[in-house]
Amino acid sequence: MHVMVIGAAGMIGRKLVEKLAAEPDDLGYDIAKLTLADVIEPSVPPGLASISKTLALDLSSQGIAARLIASRPDVIFHLAAIVSGEAEADFDKGYRVNLDGTRALFEAIRHESRNEAYFPRLLFASSIAVFGQPFPEKIGDEFFTAPLTSYGTQKAICELLLADYTRRGIFDGIGIRLPTICIRPGKPNKAASGFFSNILREPLVGQEAVLPVDESVRHWFASPRSAIGFFVHAARMDTAKIGPRRNLTMPGLSALVGEEIAALGRVAGEKAVRLIRREPDPVISSIVGGWATDFDARRARELGFTAENNFDEIIRIHIEDELGGKI
Amino acid sequence: MHVMVIGAAGMIGRKLVEKLAAEPDDLGYDIAKLTLADVIEPSVPPGLASISKTLALDLSSQGIAARLIASRPDVIFHLAAIVSGEAEADFDKGYRVNLDGTRALFEAIRHESRNEAYFPRLLFASSIAVFGQPFPEKIGDEFFTAPLTSYGTQKAICELLLADYTRRGIFDGIGIRLPTICIRPGKPNKAASGFFSNILREPLVGQEAVLPVDESVRHWFASPRSAIGFFVHAARMDTAKIGPRRNLTMPGLSALVGEEIAALGRVAGEKAVRLIRREPDPVISSIVGGWATDFDARRARELGFTAENNFDEIIRIHIEDELGGKI
Repeated sequence: MHVMVIGAAGMIGRKLVEKLAAEPDDLGYDIAKLTLADVIEPSVPPGLASISKTLALDLSSQGIAARLIASRPDVIFHLAAIVSGEAEADFDKGYRVNLDGTRALFEAIRHESRNEAYFPRLLFASSIAVFGQPFPEKIGDEFFTAPLTSYGTQKAICELLLADYTRRGIFDGIGIRLPTICIRPGKPNKAASGFFSNILREPLVGQEAVLPVDESVRHWFASPRSAIGFFVHAARMDTAKIGPRRNLTMPGLSALVGEEIAALGRVAGEKAVRLIRREPDPVISSIVGGWATDFDARRARELGFTAENNFDEIIRIHIEDELGGKI
Repeated sequence: MHVMVIGAAGMIGRKLVEKLAAEPDDLGYDIAKLTLADVIEPSVPPGLASISKTLALDLSSQGIAARLIASRPDVIFHLAAIVSGEAEADFDKGYRVNLDGTRALFEAIRHESRNEAYFPRLLFASSIAVFGQPFPEKIGDEFFTAPLTSYGTQKAICELLLADYTRRGIFDGIGIRLPTICIRPGKPNKAASGFFSNILREPLVGQEAVLPVDESVRHWFASPRSAIGFFVHAARMDTAKIGPRRNLTMPGLSALVGEEIAALGRVAGEKAVRLIRREPDPVISSIVGGWATDFDARRARELGFTAENNFDEIIRIHIEDELGGKI
């Protein structure tokens, strides 16, 4: 099988490729060929070098999607996007990359299948940003997508296209609505959501972290390991079970910031907790106050997608996957 | 004020323009200029000839939307679309006209407003085809859009764009999700929904009509007069009351085919009812069986949109508006 990862240089892309390197049988079929694409050249884990090809390209540029799809990948992980803040700051770029790039990919598959039978599986990274407040206490699988950002709008439109192209028999698509990924590896960043990870990741290595919101803030989380699990499961599952509603809110953990901190104390001790410095930031508090806090992700759970049940698990996964198993 | 109707040669477009001719103050402001556009040249009612300009054009052709918007209309009724059956039969044409044409219009407004302050009101004809079964008994205002046709997908995408462009302050948009219009004037056509109108319109003028489904079929209706009323109300209402959720399911009447027939009997007598010939058609029954039957259109009602309460009213409106008040 030929597997393609578009957006392979991003956090999810890199972790997905590492996972395929570590457990090559995990998709349930042999990977004969691996194509890794992104706007910057992605890296390849040593174990996969012999079967991999890397490409630096912009999916939204004329003719690029057709060139990618001419190699007829059997499974396509489409993770490429510009993030919410950038899509809001640059209207043209957001629509070009997040909407037109994705549509160009879908169209390239449609045109390729006209030449010779072609029906790839396509896994698309969507987001809970497709929802906009006000929300019910738990957002169910039939709650409407009324996004309040251009990023969320672009993701919601791509979801609609994915469902229609799938219904039309052009490809076998699944939209994966990711929770906020926590603990995000790497350095602290200025994304409004960064602190959810910072207040755990930094104290676990003895560094200070800033908490800009109240401990009573609730949000929706899954570990990077779960995120990769969603994509791997979606790539190998029996899609006949899904029906025409192809965009799925992934399971996650609804938790308070206070629960994050309590879990940190249990796993790493009060010394770690004392490294969290409270610096209330009304701007960040206001942005985060508009985000969804809880979902009833029933359909995805029934279809076999799983995530963590508490923050102790999320912290232990970070220690295993990022810190070599010890703190 | 400069008012523009795109799709002015269609049924809703023609009736809207006739209404503006008959009651020019109805929008709450003077119409100084009226631009009527469609793929075929629209007709102009005599009373409006001196202020009207007609255009035959395809909104989805390169540069056309910009040319239209260069005249800076204050109010834009965007009714142009190809219908559901055609959008399903011709994938390219459906996406080009229904999605790309609308997006080109929205983009033209965005670019026009960069030159000089410009903030038109934009009323967009959407459809209950944005919903796909299975449905709850009544579809509420927060039910998700999971369309099962390319037409419904295109309308749902345009709704998302409309809300985002409005949120961004590019125009002041309202998406009007129309019920099935009944009694549609004109000749019987082969649309799967045609019989809902045929079984009333034809007997009212002494002609036979065919009923291809069971009398227990339920559907969601509004008269042409109500449809025009939705657009006129949307054009003059205080949009500050709407908030960011700019796409509204219009009110309508949920009724059985049997209720249509009973109302026909009350208004036009049993002789008219005997002109309905039952010819069960399993294909039409199956298509219609997938359509929504009832809505709780609470938000639109609270915002002042109104429709009929029973089929007697719908039939009387047809007699007044199409048959000169008598049968």
